[in-house]
Amino acid sequence: MLRRYFPILSWGRVYTRQTLANDMLAAAIVTVMLIPQSLAYAMLAGLPPEAGIYASILPIILYAALGTSRALAVGPVAVVSLLTASAVGQVAAQGTAGYVAAALTLALLSGLMLLAMGLLRLGFLANFLSHPVIAGFISASGLLIAAGQLQHLLGVSAGGQTLPQIVMALIAQLGQINPATLVIGVAATGFLFWVRKGMRPALRRLGLSDSAAGIAQKAGPVAAVIVTTLAVWGLGLQDRGVSIVGAVPQSLPPLTLPALSPDLLGALLVPALLISVIGFVESVSVAQTLAAKRRERIDPDQELIALGAANLGAAFTGGLPVTGGFSRSVVNFDAGAETPAAGAFTAMGLAVAAVALTPLIYFLPTATLAATIIVAVLSLVDLSILGRTWRYSRADFAAVAATIALTLGVGVEAGVASGVLISLLLHLYKTSRPHVAEVGLVPGTQHFRNINRHEVLTDPAIVTLRVDESLFFVNARYLEDLIQRRVTEGSAIRHVVLMFSAVNAVDFSALESLEAVNERLRDMGVSLHLSEVKGPVMDRLRATHFLRDLTGQVFLSQFDAWQALHQTPRNLALRALP
Amino acid sequence: MLRRYFPILSWGRVYTRQTLANDMLAAAIVTVMLIPQSLAYAMLAGLPPEAGIYASILPIILYAALGTSRALAVGPVAVVSLLTASAVGQVAAQGTAGYVAAALTLALLSGLMLLAMGLLRLGFLANFLSHPVIAGFISASGLLIAAGQLQHLLGVSAGGQTLPQIVMALIAQLGQINPATLVIGVAATGFLFWVRKGMRPALRRLGLSDSAAGIAQKAGPVAAVIVTTLAVWGLGLQDRGVSIVGAVPQSLPPLTLPALSPDLLGALLVPALLISVIGFVESVSVAQTLAAKRRERIDPDQELIALGAANLGAAFTGGLPVTGGFSRSVVNFDAGAETPAAGAFTAMGLAVAAVALTPLIYFLPTATLAATIIVAVLSLVDLSILGRTWRYSRADFAAVAATIALTLGVGVEAGVASGVLISLLLHLYKTSRPHVAEVGLVPGTQHFRNINRHEVLTDPAIVTLRVDESLFFVNARYLEDLIQRRVTEGSAIRHVVLMFSAVNAVDFSALESLEAVNERLRDMGVSLHLSEVKGPVMDRLRATHFLRDLTGQVFLSQFDAWQALHQTPRNLALRALP
Repeated sequence: MLRRYFPILSWGRVYTRQTLANDMLAAAIVTVMLIPQSLAYAMLAGLPPEAGIYASILPIILYAALGTSRALAVGPVAVVSLLTASAVGQVAAQGTAGYVAAALTLALLSGLMLLAMGLLRLGFLANFLSHPVIAGFISASGLLIAAGQLQHLLGVSAGGQTLPQIVMALIAQLGQINPATLVIGVAATGFLFWVRKGMRPALRRLGLSDSAAGIAQKAGPVAAVIVTTLAVWGLGLQDRGVSIVGAVPQSLPPLTLPALSPDLLGALLVPALLISVIGFVESVSVAQTLAAKRRERIDPDQELIALGAANLGAAFTGGLPVTGGFSRSVVNFDAGAETPAAGAFTAMGLAVAAVALTPLIYFLPTATLAATIIVAVLSLVDLSILGRTWRYSRADFAAVAATIALTLGVGVEAGVASGVLISLLLHLYKTSRPHVAEVGLVPGTQHFRNINRHEVLTDPAIVTLRVDESLFFVNARYLEDLIQRRVTEGSAIRHVVLMFSAVNAVDFSALESLEAVNERLRDMGVSLHLSEVKGPVMDRLRATHFLRDLTGQVFLSQFDAWQALHQTPRNLALRALP
Repeated sequence: MLRRYFPILSWGRVYTRQTLANDMLAAAIVTVMLIPQSLAYAMLAGLPPEAGIYASILPIILYAALGTSRALAVGPVAVVSLLTASAVGQVAAQGTAGYVAAALTLALLSGLMLLAMGLLRLGFLANFLSHPVIAGFISASGLLIAAGQLQHLLGVSAGGQTLPQIVMALIAQLGQINPATLVIGVAATGFLFWVRKGMRPALRRLGLSDSAAGIAQKAGPVAAVIVTTLAVWGLGLQDRGVSIVGAVPQSLPPLTLPALSPDLLGALLVPALLISVIGFVESVSVAQTLAAKRRERIDPDQELIALGAANLGAAFTGGLPVTGGFSRSVVNFDAGAETPAAGAFTAMGLAVAAVALTPLIYFLPTATLAATIIVAVLSLVDLSILGRTWRYSRADFAAVAATIALTLGVGVEAGVASGVLISLLLHLYKTSRPHVAEVGLVPGTQHFRNINRHEVLTDPAIVTLRVDESLFFVNARYLEDLIQRRVTEGSAIRHVVLMFSAVNAVDFSALESLEAVNERLRDMGVSLHLSEVKGPVMDRLRATHFLRDLTGQVFLSQFDAWQALHQTPRNLALRALP
């Protein structure tokens, strides 16, 4: 029991010196990568840069103790930071103490929700987000984030929550572009794109080993930070209008208290739920992919608990909402992290950075951080989901198109909400029409097949319907209508047989529908029979009046039903394919 | 096409003199029954009594022209009148012109919604109301209505929207009971209960034929109206505090215009949707039951159009929201109505009553109308639904219990909304855990059965999972988790076969889940195979990369898969039942 909730008790007992070495190497690489990323995502969330580093210290340690993935690295991630900016921006002005406190409140609420969902084993709620909705949301968020960072690249100040607003604000500011900022921003963006795509092959052509080239690539963003910081410092660019990070407190994560006014809690409730669910879905899919590579497995409900604890940690140490990040987890895994201890070592590295290195980033231009964000998020944008869903299923396409359009045009919350709503409604619509096939006997066998697809024997007095789905309130009425329509079509019909081979459950509404069908058929002089009813369904039906009132019989097999009901051979008709 | 939208074109062409005679007799019986009922349901809705009669004239004619049921009688019904009182009471004070106008607006909105749902063929939306939620709501409404009418029986004035409020208000008024009203009310209630239960057997014991006794029974409520009206008039009881109906305008239905302010429309939107859906569900189930008795069928989408037109008619002729009523339709059917023309004759009868008979009800005590309502609605109350759902399914019980408790304790809208929400959530929870069975080969056959229920052959290198439901976003992740858990359990596993015999559809999310499973299994050195994939599902999969990337094969039958994959007989194990 204790081990289930504290996986550290399992892997901690078999921790060897070799594991330690591997974990420490991975931690060193991840730490170098996380410093610029953490600063950038804090900026994206509208928070002071140190919040990003603080959010990667205690949360990582808590996840290491509670999480079931051995490679997942938690901290601020792009989409969650965007959601944070959107939610907190509605209750406080950026740059105020209220804004920082509200971000902590959001992390607190999200942490409590994740924890509660984990303890109540409500992880299934995340299933309501369909893959196309998530993919559409992440692509649209990537575009929104990239567009929103352009202002830092151009050295202007433009607001806007939606893509049209952002674009209009940028166009209005084109005259105020700061040339020095633009040079830094464009150079940094170009360099970082090259780091991502061209650096590794180039280094290998220069003779470096693949792993050395890989490590150099991970250090690329740090190189951009160092070079642009030195350039600003050396050339005094801050005096020519280049915006810089400035003074960052030199300390370990502080103890902070989230704001707790009822109004604030009320306003942040829905965004916190959204952040929790989206963060959880992202995190779990990364963790599952990495776990499979080593034939390990993760426990989604325990992941909820671990992510909840990580967010609570962020709330009380000056952070912001966090989750398991894709890029940092993959780097951690590739660098050879074997246990969550690697995360704990990363946390120590970042703690050292927070105490010792913050003075060095005084002259870091925000344009470099914006470039880091843009390059990172554009890799998330994949609009091919529109074409793929269009070809595969129009219902999925409708959900993804609505999600993208509303996320870009109205806002992140409207985008996700509409996507979830549309996919649920379309799903309920589809399930309200259960698959039902009229079947006949394949000559010379005991098998029954769809009369529209096979040459089968039918009897005008018998209608046999194979119900291919479980029956419940959403689809019961459709079956009622179908039977009534079918029976009024053929005046010779004396028996209706429902073949229940694929019916796993019959809820109370469907039971009452069956009772109504039985009565109505009786009024028409037609008997209702069942065949091939599964054990659990039969047990349920036995506890009701239905079987007693049934005008016909329950047959073990459909062939039994055929033999018992089909007594006049002259009625037999071989039905050719239409 | 025209005939689909105007069923009158079908039955009108074969109308004979005999049909006319039958329809007119049925109309006479229904008219006598409808006069007190219409007055009573208008009072229940908080409207002047004539509104109930007006609502039974043009709406009946419009339904006769457009409806597909030959026996359904539309007009004000108890539950819809209660919903009307609840909705309109929130936007206007009873007794004002604004209240009357708002009731017309509600009928207009409801009419437009029903019409739109019919033209867009959205009748499936009614499926979201599960049977237990409807049953619970109707029982709770019946209790609420009966409690609310007690004030008229006691001659006091007590308000309240919820059962506790009504009961407290009545208790506070116990000192003000009017003795004359109480005598009339109790006598009328007792008489009407006797009419319903004991009158018919008593008349038959006196020698009347069954049909004559039946007709006398239907006239029973009119007798109560006549006797109590004469009593008030003869004894001058109106001067002793007995509340009477008073002056009712003597006219045909007037042309009225619903109020159309945006605020009012906004406030009535949700109640109108509720009234539309509940009214439609009630009406369709009555119509279906009656149609089946004559081997006819109704078209639910056309019913939406006909009920929509009926409500528009009510909105412009001084009525209130209407739907197909249970008791009046059954009476119409039993009295021998053969076509919707019977409804049109009923409308004429009521028009005559509106013009000629209204002065005669000046002295009709409201206590008599309250008694009519109480006796009618108490027959709708059936709390046995609680016990029946408890025994059958706890999920259905939860939905019905919440519906009843919230309808009585908070209000009608909260009751229905919570019932719908709970049943949908529980349904989604259940469907998020698809039925998946691990199967093995039944020795000596080609059949595969659940390893937990049958003695079957298994191979430690092969895991075969039979997926018993269609795969879509709500349940795809569960399958992912299940496969990963199963595969990490057995290190000898080399093949996973998914048996798709019961999978009717795979949505885009499930496709991506299968792709993820395929990749993760590849990382573990395990191949993924499919077997018994249905034609439509295979067509969909062929249009994607999935089959090309699949590490294993697609087998036509599960036995083919077994023969191809199971190559080392020494691995064979006969798995005994646990």
